[in-house]
Amino acid sequence: MIVILRSDATEAQIQHIVNRATKLGLKSNISRGVERTVIGFIGPEDALRVIPLEVFPGVEQVMQVLAPYRLVSREFKKQDTVIKLPYHTAVGGKKIVVMAGPCSVEGYDSLLSIAKKVKGLGATILRGGAFKPRTSPYDFQGLGEEGLQILQRVGKEVGICTISEVMDTRQVELVARYVDILQIGARNVQNFSLLKEVGTSKKPVMLKRGMSATIKEWLMSAEYLLANGNFEVMLCERGIRTFETATRNTLDINAVAVARRLSHLPVIVDPSHGTGSWEYVAAGARAGVAAGCDGLMIEVHENPEEALSDGAQSLMPDKFEELMTVCKRIAQAVGREV
Amino acid sequence: MIVILRSDATEAQIQHIVNRATKLGLKSNISRGVERTVIGFIGPEDALRVIPLEVFPGVEQVMQVLAPYRLVSREFKKQDTVIKLPYHTAVGGKKIVVMAGPCSVEGYDSLLSIAKKVKGLGATILRGGAFKPRTSPYDFQGLGEEGLQILQRVGKEVGICTISEVMDTRQVELVARYVDILQIGARNVQNFSLLKEVGTSKKPVMLKRGMSATIKEWLMSAEYLLANGNFEVMLCERGIRTFETATRNTLDINAVAVARRLSHLPVIVDPSHGTGSWEYVAAGARAGVAAGCDGLMIEVHENPEEALSDGAQSLMPDKFEELMTVCKRIAQAVGREV
Amino acid sequence: MIVILRSDATEAQIQHIVNRATKLGLKSNISRGVERTVIGFIGPEDALRVIPLEVFPGVEQVMQVLAPYRLVSREFKKQDTVIKLPYHTAVGGKKIVVMAGPCSVEGYDSLLSIAKKVKGLGATILRGGAFKPRTSPYDFQGLGEEGLQILQRVGKEVGICTISEVMDTRQVELVARYVDILQIGARNVQNFSLLKEVGTSKKPVMLKRGMSATIKEWLMSAEYLLANGNFEVMLCERGIRTFETATRNTLDINAVAVARRLSHLPVIVDPSHGTGSWEYVAAGARAGVAAGCDGLMIEVHENPEEALSDGAQSLMPDKFEELMTVCKRIAQAVGREV
Amino acid sequence: MIVILRSDATEAQIQHIVNRATKLGLKSNISRGVERTVIGFIGPEDALRVIPLEVFPGVEQVMQVLAPYRLVSREFKKQDTVIKLPYHTAVGGKKIVVMAGPCSVEGYDSLLSIAKKVKGLGATILRGGAFKPRTSPYDFQGLGEEGLQILQRVGKEVGICTISEVMDTRQVELVARYVDILQIGARNVQNFSLLKEVGTSKKPVMLKRGMSATIKEWLMSAEYLLANGNFEVMLCERGIRTFETATRNTLDINAVAVARRLSHLPVIVDPSHGTGSWEYVAAGARAGVAAGCDGLMIEVHENPEEALSDGAQSLMPDKFEELMTVCKRIAQAVGREV
Repeated sequence: MIVILRSDATEAQIQHIVNRATKLGLKSNISRGVERTVIGFIGPEDALRVIPLEVFPGVEQVMQVLAPYRLVSREFKKQDTVIKLPYHTAVGGKKIVVMAGPCSVEGYDSLLSIAKKVKGLGATILRGGAFKPRTSPYDFQGLGEEGLQILQRVGKEVGICTISEVMDTRQVELVARYVDILQIGARNVQNFSLLKEVGTSKKPVMLKRGMSATIKEWLMSAEYLLANGNFEVMLCERGIRTFETATRNTLDINAVAVARRLSHLPVIVDPSHGTGSWEYVAAGARAGVAAGCDGLMIEVHENPEEALSDGAQSLMPDKFEELMTVCKRIAQAVGREV
Repeated sequence: MIVILRSDATEAQIQHIVNRATKLGLKSNISRGVERTVIGFIGPEDALRVIPLEVFPGVEQVMQVLAPYRLVSREFKKQDTVIKLPYHTAVGGKKIVVMAGPCSVEGYDSLLSIAKKVKGLGATILRGGAFKPRTSPYDFQGLGEEGLQILQRVGKEVGICTISEVMDTRQVELVARYVDILQIGARNVQNFSLLKEVGTSKKPVMLKRGMSATIKEWLMSAEYLLANGNFEVMLCERGIRTFETATRNTLDINAVAVARRLSHLPVIVDPSHGTGSWEYVAAGARAGVAAGCDGLMIEVHENPEEALSDGAQSLMPDKFEELMTVCKRIAQAVGREV
Repeated sequence: MIVILRSDATEAQIQHIVNRATKLGLKSNISRGVERTVIGFIGPEDALRVIPLEVFPGVEQVMQVLAPYRLVSREFKKQDTVIKLPYHTAVGGKKIVVMAGPCSVEGYDSLLSIAKKVKGLGATILRGGAFKPRTSPYDFQGLGEEGLQILQRVGKEVGICTISEVMDTRQVELVARYVDILQIGARNVQNFSLLKEVGTSKKPVMLKRGMSATIKEWLMSAEYLLANGNFEVMLCERGIRTFETATRNTLDINAVAVARRLSHLPVIVDPSHGTGSWEYVAAGARAGVAAGCDGLMIEVHENPEEALSDGAQSLMPDKFEELMTVCKRIAQAVGREV
Repeated sequence: MIVILRSDATEAQIQHIVNRATKLGLKSNISRGVERTVIGFIGPEDALRVIPLEVFPGVEQVMQVLAPYRLVSREFKKQDTVIKLPYHTAVGGKKIVVMAGPCSVEGYDSLLSIAKKVKGLGATILRGGAFKPRTSPYDFQGLGEEGLQILQRVGKEVGICTISEVMDTRQVELVARYVDILQIGARNVQNFSLLKEVGTSKKPVMLKRGMSATIKEWLMSAEYLLANGNFEVMLCERGIRTFETATRNTLDINAVAVARRLSHLPVIVDPSHGTGSWEYVAAGARAGVAAGCDGLMIEVHENPEEALSDGAQSLMPDKFEELMTVCKRIAQAVGREV
């Protein structure tokens, strides 16, 4: 922690700050420059982080030296985290995983049909929402537990891992009973009660970045999961909210490299939400693979015109097939495989 | 709902869209312009809203005619909603309410002391968090139920209404037992499970705007509350996230006038979060009153240096007193009172 | 300047950085913490600021201690800058100035008529664009020099100061010949060639904030003006670009207090661009006065339906009159006058 | 153009709007829905676009049907624009061009050395700034004409095309005399005077996207160039400004696919500015190629520690070499070549 003082800060003000730090067990290094005095603190920074130094008289600015996350950081763990799943699937290794399927589970027949297709094309994780976060209370809210049952049944029949979203602390146990990966959606990235609850689950988790979460905040939310005992966490970049309206979100492709440098957790890219339009999904997916992601999550639907949610950003199987072909080649070009 | 077709859209594509609308009970008005054909639909737009028309062949763009919210809109209810609270307090009338108090409930003595002071200066609602949403899992998470007990006891002793945040569906009943107003925080503005649960509560609610929620999305979240039966909802503008880093958030002062035009619900302004720094809180509060808000929510602490959360943006009682004096004068200037 | 090193930084890397600083005449203060080593530099920070320390091996992060602007800062000059204009008008004193008039100069008769009205209602500066920055090359681009001639003539006849925008280095002399204040528009806030040219002019300048300029960048652009010799600079907050689309821009009301704290230059608020809709202009203007601005810039047109530009955000004279009445009362409430 | 009326709009208000449109030569198609009346206009929309319909009584919202740009649109010209340059270089064809070199021209020897290297590694265009837009007036502003002379001389000696930025209408002729491509920087994307002047030049232009320009605005700025006679325009995505601070800008990878769909102009990606840090440049460049860009612009410097500008985001030649190797493979994977 570094404190920059106002140019008119007094000795008494400096002493007051130093005293407070001393009480917390930190040593103060006072550097008197030409125009400013700066105090650096040596010792357990966490103790000081919770003190609102900004309100201490004479303080101009407070700067943090250490990242506030620990367990998720590369410094805590140098090697990439690899998460093992059923059916010989692993997330975080050389192979880039592909999660595909409809936005919502809509029924057994349609899910079975799409599951077979995406598996045949190389996907190893089947996505399908049962509890759907919808902006409007009047929109389809998902099939609930019935949707989870269908997802589990199809996953077993086809031999493919499954992922589905959990929105409520009260649903964690239920969802965990049916699927292989719990998804925490963008809107719940700072639903700390949910993070704590999922942190105590034994299931792998995929944590989507919030649409206005900085990478640092996103990692802090992941820290909640690890701090509560769940280390099998994957991050998912799904686009952030910016001023641009030509696309539903702005896929933050930089975030892939940044998150991988700062953290050991695998990073998934979701170009369906990251673009919001089926016409741009392929470009986003290709960019994700080229940028170094560990997985893709793609909405695929056999009849987007009839999709109960997110039809506009769903790929038809033929487009998904084309995309898989190109992604395999790009993966090879960057030393990975799909 | 209006659909703009691509310049190369075929008759068959147009017919395909019209047929779908007809099945849903809508009439289509086809307007063939020089460069574009446009289809307007007449009838129950909601039926069509859930269809992903963007993926229908030949479609360039889809535009919504009606706002997606109903119950919260001015068209549904012309008169301002007025919410009655204990101690002759009402939100939404001529009098602008002031909610004040510490970020977190930290103890009985400190809360009692600050409660007396803010009440003496004109505040009619005491704020104090018991369940705190914190970016870091290692930060103070609030006193929990004990905090609520203290808040209730102090409220009764001082004779002042109380507000506290609820973060989890499992806490709604508990928090509702102790306080007069449930607060839904910015990070939970699209926690739809929580919105539904609070919607079934009988307690008045204050819904904070999410830091990246558009005004439309914020109203849609309020719609969840009303649609579930709770009509005693106040909105709270608390700053949005932008590129500017000189302040913690950018107080969207425009949102006050926009929300009041679009909705009948009262609008509160929170300049503490809206600025993030005690030095700017007064300017934000004064602007809020001038812009036409129905209430202010202000963090006040007797010793910000020791505050367990949000010390940097808390006002000391003397600054709060100055602010109240000016706000009373501004309120008069705009035909209101504080 | 403070440099935070990576946890694995070597002694040789530290020495390499220190050597570089020493060559530039700075002393290095090395603070070896538990997890990080931090180097603070003492001496002429500007010398170091241009060195890309981020690329030096071992460096994690670079933090600036001093604000990069000097002449515009409060530390350079404690007292508010007051700019004297013709007709006993001054910007920056107790009186809040009002600049009003049409977006574009459209003709002599219409400008004369509106000038009389706005002066009668208390405006002391007449606005009117002659060179218009338009997003589309096919839109009305302003009357050019003829517009300036009309503006000057009307200003003299009515006895009111004038302001008009300059968009091109080649126009500076021309525009300066006709008006009392040169305006630099939001889109040119980082047109450094223009800033330099206007900096050498003897005319007072109003520098609008760019729609994506941070307050720091805006002040740096003002620094260009002062560094080139022009100290009669006023800043104008006119809304920033955010994700919100309900308004044309988001009026950053916080910026008024921040800019006034960091700088001695007067701050004007433009609620016409800050909101983009006549329905919200009054709320924005009232908020600006309450927040402590030194002036307002408001588009007023007698027949917005026929306005050649910005009709949607122009007030009719009767609405402007109402607004002036309220602003006078609010100004009094905050110890100022209009 | 479509106008949505307020629910309480009167027949007289509707007639007033229709009359205005009729005078402009447009037919009105009135569609009376259950809750709203909507008017669609058929005919020359441009005539109506400049009328501020938002202020007409009874109007709720105005929606544009046609994109406001024409010459830059795919509808105006279906085939990709290919721009021919010296040394058998072309931008917009199957081959993805690479522009590389230092941020600023710093001297003949250093530029010659880096030019040889980047050409040897596959770059066909040499970048180097002579007039530099710098946030601070105290920073290095470029070598001016001397820099252009060096750039031209090196370009000829090495046999490589050249690009350099023009910042001022008065510099256009000068810069055009020395280089093969004029660059318009992000900060001047809406410097309409400059756009007009460069539009009349015979030199190819690269127009960078402004850090807060929507794709639509960016295309409108390109429209200024084409409307003034210059059709040899390439677009350059260089990152936009968002709330994220971990990177200097957020590279909007979606913009590549969007701009290529909406326009026939080639799209270049600049990952140096798009990320702001040499550590992330490669990921951004790889993503750009995978997403379908027509070129890359990359800052390369032999000694970033001594660079006079943008050292932090410059690649050393060895990193550039690695990047070129991977980009060649990715280009092949997507059916292109580097």
